[in-house]
Amino acid sequence: MNYHLSQLPERTAKPRESGFTMAMDKGLSVREAENFVEVAGEYTDIVKLGWATSFVTPNLEKKLDVYRAAGIPVYFGGTLFEAFIVRDQFDDYRRVLDKFNMTFAEVSDGSIEMDHGKKCEYIRTLSEQVTVLSEVGSKDAEKIIPPYKWIKLMQDELDAGAWKVIGESREAGNVGLFRSTGEVRSGLVEEILTKIPFEKILWEAPQKAQQVFFIKLLGANVNLGNIAPNEIIPLETIRLGLRGDTFTHFIDKALLDKLV
Amino acid sequence: MNYHLSQLPERTAKPRESGFTMAMDKGLSVREAENFVEVAGEYTDIVKLGWATSFVTPNLEKKLDVYRAAGIPVYFGGTLFEAFIVRDQFDDYRRVLDKFNMTFAEVSDGSIEMDHGKKCEYIRTLSEQVTVLSEVGSKDAEKIIPPYKWIKLMQDELDAGAWKVIGESREAGNVGLFRSTGEVRSGLVEEILTKIPFEKILWEAPQKAQQVFFIKLLGANVNLGNIAPNEIIPLETIRLGLRGDTFTHFIDKALLDKLV
Amino acid sequence: MNYHLSQLPERTAKPRESGFTMAMDKGLSVREAENFVEVAGEYTDIVKLGWATSFVTPNLEKKLDVYRAAGIPVYFGGTLFEAFIVRDQFDDYRRVLDKFNMTFAEVSDGSIEMDHGKKCEYIRTLSEQVTVLSEVGSKDAEKIIPPYKWIKLMQDELDAGAWKVIGESREAGNVGLFRSTGEVRSGLVEEILTKIPFEKILWEAPQKAQQVFFIKLLGANVNLGNIAPNEIIPLETIRLGLRGDTFTHFIDKALLDKLV
Repeated sequence: MNYHLSQLPERTAKPRESGFTMAMDKGLSVREAENFVEVAGEYTDIVKLGWATSFVTPNLEKKLDVYRAAGIPVYFGGTLFEAFIVRDQFDDYRRVLDKFNMTFAEVSDGSIEMDHGKKCEYIRTLSEQVTVLSEVGSKDAEKIIPPYKWIKLMQDELDAGAWKVIGESREAGNVGLFRSTGEVRSGLVEEILTKIPFEKILWEAPQKAQQVFFIKLLGANVNLGNIAPNEIIPLETIRLGLRGDTFTHFIDKALLDKLV
Repeated sequence: MNYHLSQLPERTAKPRESGFTMAMDKGLSVREAENFVEVAGEYTDIVKLGWATSFVTPNLEKKLDVYRAAGIPVYFGGTLFEAFIVRDQFDDYRRVLDKFNMTFAEVSDGSIEMDHGKKCEYIRTLSEQVTVLSEVGSKDAEKIIPPYKWIKLMQDELDAGAWKVIGESREAGNVGLFRSTGEVRSGLVEEILTKIPFEKILWEAPQKAQQVFFIKLLGANVNLGNIAPNEIIPLETIRLGLRGDTFTHFIDKALLDKLV
Repeated sequence: MNYHLSQLPERTAKPRESGFTMAMDKGLSVREAENFVEVAGEYTDIVKLGWATSFVTPNLEKKLDVYRAAGIPVYFGGTLFEAFIVRDQFDDYRRVLDKFNMTFAEVSDGSIEMDHGKKCEYIRTLSEQVTVLSEVGSKDAEKIIPPYKWIKLMQDELDAGAWKVIGESREAGNVGLFRSTGEVRSGLVEEILTKIPFEKILWEAPQKAQQVFFIKLLGANVNLGNIAPNEIIPLETIRLGLRGDTFTHFIDKALLDKLV
């Protein structure tokens, strides 16, 4: 750090099991990826190439090199997995993962209806090849999943071999864990946490208010994802209680009283 | 493409008459323009230097060189045309187009009231010098133009020599074709299309929901504009049915049924 | 400028006492800072490193060099001052300012309750070391300060040695001077201006509608802050009446009438 401040919440260090941050790259250039890594690489534990953007970006190999050189693993968004599955090209997908030396992959069913047994089968198969993140929750705002079912789906996917489960929100943060306004379904979150260990969950929380909600509820070292590259530094300050939103959250009340 | 996916909608290739994408540069640096072109140049058919930003950006010549080297034509936003017209400096405007070797220009009346005969005269005169895009629709949310008049204005401007007509939306996508909430005036769009060929229209659609609307209605190869440089890659995935919003739109229903 | 347009409002030049623009850097990389300065350095009078982002960005020294080479002063956001104060580390803060050769500093109480006499004392002490900007207004949307009190607070802080006073808005523009919707508290602004000279106030106005409000009310040379780096060029066009929002504001009505 550039100077010393007392009374900061303790942050985990890389490689992090909790307190880790997933950034979403939705089409950065090579130099933009370098810019991002220069300033926020230390606080970024994994990068997702959003949905199927990796299909159309011409700089894929070079960009993977940038992230690899910075020691940050990368994975393709779950929608790409679904794009292969819906076309009955699962074997092709596995070859694509190998071709690009991917060590992580996401299994999701956010854009399609998929039998959950089949989904768990995909998790099981892929986890022999890579580390699997699996995602629960639909991208369709109409599809409300009740809490007990979120828990069952998450548990089954962890049992099938998922390293962590992701709570869906989309890039905009307006479905799945969130109401269409972006407000957190807080009852859902709390019920999930009665059954699933918090370090096994990666909460997609692209909006600042959502990040603040999770940090106030679960502390500086909650796992958060779908963070835009230029929001990683702001997020780190929120984790540390160094932005207005969480400023007094980690501070001894006696110190606050001394000011007035 | 970086790997193969079956069942993708066919996309037109450059130089595109339909399926083309207009990006809005509202003040990129030279390196930012290079970044943009590296990752999205293939999917960008024309760049608009938004409104009169070209007046104040000190790097204009160098940036034009970047776009030219990438084979992407550039034009000044219609508000710049209007800024010259309102000051009775039309001849100066024509000289500016020559000075910067512009091959395209926009004629609009979004910020001023202009006699439509005069507007068509400007289109006629400028189309002897450059390829003209003309824009219909006011930047003033209060000014509602009924559908029959949109059609008449568009047809007159095409007759006067406009290469394509643009449906106004502003950078924010909240006027003209759209309600102040950003919602598409879908009845207006459908009525326009009964009379004006769809490849002659460039729809300004900066918001994702607007892009999705046009792609679902008119297919992968609808002409879309006012796209932010970092949204060109996401837009291309929406055109291809590779993002959640259009994911099942181009897929054979039988394949979807096999999954459940 | 790249070409000539008549009838533009006169703009002040650097070093500006009025008409100046404060940009907010919330974690740019070195190259991004260079990009920003290339295109908008001429229109940027001062850069704020937002809240405590300077604590976590690893490139602080190098980035300060970029801004210094461009002749643009930099200061740490007021939340960093508050972070030191709440931890009883004021002397450390003064040393940090020296260590990084800062010539400006912000004194604020947006995230904490602080006795106003103490706040003025901090302003007095720091103004012996650097040029002080002090900020009035809470980051808490619930805390409504009545107009007479805004005026008293601002006057006291100017008397204590503040160079200018800042009207708080946050990065999002939704507190302090603004309602939670972003709408300007216009009565508040007008009442403040009956007592405090307009060149002594720096209005935080990150949203375009807010910038337009202040420019229409106070002219091209109002002091505006919390502008995102990529919005400096757009703002400059709004100041000059070269974007739709202020397009007719600076134009002789007789010229407009000639068009219809």
